[in-house]
Amino acid sequence: MTWSAQQYLAFEQERTRPVKDLVAAIPSIDVRSAVDLGCGPGNSTEILAHRFPEATVSGIDSSEEMLVAAQQRLPTLQFELSEISTWAPTKRFDVILANASLQWLGNHDVLYPKLLSKLSGDGCLAVQIPDNLDEPAHRLAREVAANGPWSQKIGSVIHHIRHDASFYYELLRENCSAINIWRTTYYHPLAGGAAAIVEWFKGTALRPYLTPLEDAERSAFLEQYLANITEAYPALPDGTVLLPFSRLFLVASR
Amino acid sequence: MTWSAQQYLAFEQERTRPVKDLVAAIPSIDVRSAVDLGCGPGNSTEILAHRFPEATVSGIDSSEEMLVAAQQRLPTLQFELSEISTWAPTKRFDVILANASLQWLGNHDVLYPKLLSKLSGDGCLAVQIPDNLDEPAHRLAREVAANGPWSQKIGSVIHHIRHDASFYYELLRENCSAINIWRTTYYHPLAGGAAAIVEWFKGTALRPYLTPLEDAERSAFLEQYLANITEAYPALPDGTVLLPFSRLFLVASR
Repeated sequence: MTWSAQQYLAFEQERTRPVKDLVAAIPSIDVRSAVDLGCGPGNSTEILAHRFPEATVSGIDSSEEMLVAAQQRLPTLQFELSEISTWAPTKRFDVILANASLQWLGNHDVLYPKLLSKLSGDGCLAVQIPDNLDEPAHRLAREVAANGPWSQKIGSVIHHIRHDASFYYELLRENCSAINIWRTTYYHPLAGGAAAIVEWFKGTALRPYLTPLEDAERSAFLEQYLANITEAYPALPDGTVLLPFSRLFLVASR
Repeated sequence: MTWSAQQYLAFEQERTRPVKDLVAAIPSIDVRSAVDLGCGPGNSTEILAHRFPEATVSGIDSSEEMLVAAQQRLPTLQFELSEISTWAPTKRFDVILANASLQWLGNHDVLYPKLLSKLSGDGCLAVQIPDNLDEPAHRLAREVAANGPWSQKIGSVIHHIRHDASFYYELLRENCSAINIWRTTYYHPLAGGAAAIVEWFKGTALRPYLTPLEDAERSAFLEQYLANITEAYPALPDGTVLLPFSRLFLVASR
């Protein structure tokens, strides 16, 4: 398993696609202020700022490391260390973007209406959350964790919050003039085959499983996981695998 | 069941969304000529022409009625009566668009490479096909057709051609520099509830079932179908139903 810069860039391109689709679906309203909740290293904030060049664009994240990277990437924008759950801005925004961040927070029935209340009169809430816990890549991670000698050490892992399209539609429609919901499965061709799938998830879904383990256990976990992934995602004749990745999108207008 | 102009326009907006997404995903190449295969009344051609204002844009369709509507909508573009299966242009195109048309043709393993061969050096084939035969709306239509007194009269109905993402990826990758495949489920909120779902499919999926029937049978068919749809798509408290509609997208670059 190698992790070349080229492969990383390929992943970045694949991972940036959903936020491009999300931001493209925001209606063409007059946007003066926009905020990116859980901005990470700023790749989503960059796309938001590009779409609304006249707006004051800011980002918040709970990781100082991420904010340093974001500030370096986008020196003219404002970034702030803050938790989404306790975020309490003193002014309203025309666009609130949350790209692959809200799935880590609970109580969506309270959270989403609260975010709506931070929007200006015709403002817009734009959200994307991964929706792939049923994919073999996730199921196999749970299985390897539960069935190995490390199961006690790993303990119980907290998964994404998941609700379906109807839940969000019902929750928000009363306070919105329009709600646009869709779910997309992207088929990412990974030239590195099953090993590339393991690399893809090592930095995200596998982290809660790998973090509590010693180096030797971690290697054994990844070896078993790779074997199972190889079986579940058969390679095409040239060694490529198609990785399906599903995401739920929501654009709600006040 | 009513079919108001307003409701029709609502459907048009919902039905135009996929081709907007498809055309937006075409790479920013230098496009001088673009063609819309199965252009219908020209709504897809309009979006194609809007994206590439410098290009010569044309459309073909096998229905004269559709071409009259398309020509009326877009008087400056060229439209031609032609079948996609026998289409044999004398020059190559930078973009070939096929929005919800190729699913009616067979032999995709021959058809798609043939379309690729009509592209210029860095040209692009952009395809969208419905992929919702497993949805209750389709399943129930098949059931009502098979279990009513009209079953013999309806006989066997030809359904869409269906292949999955891997099929198209494997078929095209050898002759393409990049292949972008995704599948999106749009959740269309229909204010008219189950009756609106029946209206939605009356003009498309239900046609092969309804066409062979007499008026009285047709009414009875629709009544039974509406009853089954009402059960399968429970309305939200305000009477709205969310209609999930899945579509497969493919953007293949030479």
